[in-house]
Amino acid sequence: MHQKKTQLQEFMISENIDVIYLDNPNTVAYFTGFESNPHERIVAYILTQKDDFLFVPTLEKEEAMQRSNVETVYSYNDSEDPWKIIAQEVSKLIDKKIDSYCIDETTMTVERDNKLRHAFLDIHKNTITTNDISSVIEQMRLVKTEDEIEKMIASGKLADEALQIGIDSLVEGITEQEVAAIIDMEMKKKGVSEMSFSTLVLFGDHAASPHGNPGERQLKPNELVLFDLGVIYNGYASDVTRTVAFGEVNKKEKEVYDIVLEAQRTAQAAVKPGMRAGELDIIARQVIENAGYGEYFTHRLGHGIGKTAHEFPSINAENDTILEPGMCFSIEPGIYIPGEVGVRIEDCVYVTEDGCEPFTFMDKELYTIIK
Amino acid sequence: MHQKKTQLQEFMISENIDVIYLDNPNTVAYFTGFESNPHERIVAYILTQKDDFLFVPTLEKEEAMQRSNVETVYSYNDSEDPWKIIAQEVSKLIDKKIDSYCIDETTMTVERDNKLRHAFLDIHKNTITTNDISSVIEQMRLVKTEDEIEKMIASGKLADEALQIGIDSLVEGITEQEVAAIIDMEMKKKGVSEMSFSTLVLFGDHAASPHGNPGERQLKPNELVLFDLGVIYNGYASDVTRTVAFGEVNKKEKEVYDIVLEAQRTAQAAVKPGMRAGELDIIARQVIENAGYGEYFTHRLGHGIGKTAHEFPSINAENDTILEPGMCFSIEPGIYIPGEVGVRIEDCVYVTEDGCEPFTFMDKELYTIIK
Repeated sequence: MHQKKTQLQEFMISENIDVIYLDNPNTVAYFTGFESNPHERIVAYILTQKDDFLFVPTLEKEEAMQRSNVETVYSYNDSEDPWKIIAQEVSKLIDKKIDSYCIDETTMTVERDNKLRHAFLDIHKNTITTNDISSVIEQMRLVKTEDEIEKMIASGKLADEALQIGIDSLVEGITEQEVAAIIDMEMKKKGVSEMSFSTLVLFGDHAASPHGNPGERQLKPNELVLFDLGVIYNGYASDVTRTVAFGEVNKKEKEVYDIVLEAQRTAQAAVKPGMRAGELDIIARQVIENAGYGEYFTHRLGHGIGKTAHEFPSINAENDTILEPGMCFSIEPGIYIPGEVGVRIEDCVYVTEDGCEPFTFMDKELYTIIK
Repeated sequence: MHQKKTQLQEFMISENIDVIYLDNPNTVAYFTGFESNPHERIVAYILTQKDDFLFVPTLEKEEAMQRSNVETVYSYNDSEDPWKIIAQEVSKLIDKKIDSYCIDETTMTVERDNKLRHAFLDIHKNTITTNDISSVIEQMRLVKTEDEIEKMIASGKLADEALQIGIDSLVEGITEQEVAAIIDMEMKKKGVSEMSFSTLVLFGDHAASPHGNPGERQLKPNELVLFDLGVIYNGYASDVTRTVAFGEVNKKEKEVYDIVLEAQRTAQAAVKPGMRAGELDIIARQVIENAGYGEYFTHRLGHGIGKTAHEFPSINAENDTILEPGMCFSIEPGIYIPGEVGVRIEDCVYVTEDGCEPFTFMDKELYTIIK
């Protein structure tokens, strides 16, 4: 974590930035190790070129001191003006008038930006400008540290277990909702506080619907079942998709499955540092197009993953990001023929020195359940 | 829903406001009936004095047309500039140069505000200012319509069922996490897509810990069990707390329970339109203070509820909001003696013409489970 703080402060020195204010809970946790869910209250991480402090509601101060890696923690009561305290503490750390500060414009609200600016204005009595630091934060979060990769491996392991629980629960007549509920319950029993997103379980042609949500549909013999799920564990997300056969499925379904599998494997095998992220989408799409199903692969190949299940880099054909070791993203081609069949297969991977490694390991050959 | 739009447009005319842009998903759903979770994409509701339109990603256009009550829906692809489209469509509806627009500053990001301002600037080539409409929106959402109350009654009914499921699952040796998981699973089976917040189940003195989260702790005979839970159903939240006895509990625990119950009932019976919201907190606190436990009631009496479980009005002693029929909030006193006992009892209520009605009905006398 110290490494991240140092990296950001070196950037501040090189760019002549005096103050950075960050209050997105995921970003605060990324830099400080302190996970929080402050709702309308403020949990912020503030840096100057030499110092840093965490700012929290008084109720959370003790926890923040125990769980964060930040030495200085300031706090405020509901009856105090948090912006005044922040501006005062920052001003003590800087030997000159403050005339600008940096924020993450993609998450900072207009209200908070106005309040922070006025608090600085009250002390320094000069024009204060706001600059955007979001692309720098984004770039840092894009490349995961070893410690982050380890946490994501643990999160991936639980996703594999969740898949197995879902598969084991399949029985004729069970509903999609029931299977999703069983998966979530068993994960909760393992200490998972939150799924990465709402667990998806879709039966048969329902998996071909773009807005498919688990419903009352009951499982019939000889249909495909699509699982798309993941957990948040130790602050990091996992995400995996498998499509399995409940009984014998028909030739068309098998054919579609094999094409998706080939697209997924081909793209995963092609990952290398130095390549354009968008190239992976093109590679997977080519396999599906060559097989004549191009029009049914209706979304990008994948998305970045880290503290949440939707981060950078986006794996779409236009993305020019050059892959580097430590970048993490999903590879999830699919074919969706409305009213007929839906198949998607997904692993999330991290880029290594010479390729990539997946976070999930469940076998990708068509798994057939005979009960 | 039409009534809400009319109310806002009348306000626009009286205050000479040309444009309102709203993109908080709960606010958009409040006005349009369209529930969404757009992540980094944009779902916005835009009003002029005479017209309004919903703006969504193309993928969601069909759903938005079906589910919303708005006649005009515009959309954008990932390759288009959404801000340009919004500014163009708004400019078509207004016969003059646009020099200001209103947003909800408490939820609008700085990035989006900048982009929208620049899009208007590109068309109108004049200074554009942003004004805050958040207090007006807040005020509207504070007083629920009959339709909203009906939805909250349905959501409350499910919370009562969830409580019963939790109580029925109690058995010696079960963990807090397991009980919470069972409740969530059974709610999912009933079509609840989301709980209002993470289901709380706490055993014995664990219920006295301010940061208590369901853990591996196993249920022992003769201890109290605290449930705090709610669901989101049809876009509206419920929230209820009961503390029950698993076997026989001791005299101190019973005493604490009875004091909390008296505080809860006294406050609930005192609710009347025309009174100060903060008065309720004082009334409940007085009961607990008179019994000698004032120092152990460590939080405000309650919070508003509606589309989420944390809205206005806050029920704390300082809140000068005058209660009106249709306002909805929780009444949830508690006594927490560290290492010993924790009791909280909560109903959410809506203010009526002459008092209030609860959304949850499970009996509040101490419920003792003998197994």
